[in-house]
Amino acid sequence: MSETRVVVEVMLKPEILDPQGRAVKGAFARLGFEGVADIRQGKRFELTIEGELTADRMAALETLAGTLLCNPVIEDYRIVSVEGAA
Amino acid sequence: MSETRVVVEVMLKPEILDPQGRAVKGAFARLGFEGVADIRQGKRFELTIEGELTADRMAALETLAGTLLCNPVIEDYRIVSVEGAA
Repeated sequence: MSETRVVVEVMLKPEILDPQGRAVKGAFARLGFEGVADIRQGKRFELTIEGELTADRMAALETLAGTLLCNPVIEDYRIVSVEGAA
Repeated sequence: MSETRVVVEVMLKPEILDPQGRAVKGAFARLGFEGVADIRQGKRFELTIEGELTADRMAALETLAGTLLCNPVIEDYRIVSVEGAA
């Protein structure tokens, strides 16, 4: 049965302070890696979906990505990869 | 000054149970999106680095990605995107 693999990336909006990313940036400097201008931390979801992603299912996925997978007040999502697999 | 943008993706190793991904998969089903075979949740880091990423700095970045950004016992990392910007 065919499967479709989808990746959804969720990042804080650029104007929202990212304390996790800030902490990682501080750790880079303390560990001797200089010259880091910025680090932002986000989430990614790898979905394996049975069958094809029809237009209707893609629309439903967009809705879920924008409500369940991210908090639209402070986060943006991107559906970055949609590939069918045998 | 030139900047280099790097993305590091961190995912649980395939053999490690992913309770977050499992919870999201359950939510998809409850919300009416059927046919999800699997969902895995991971992290992504967007790094903006001043100047060029020389071979030495790339090696240092690999070390940090494999120790600071991920827990190598249960997670894999991938440096997926390295692009210079003006």
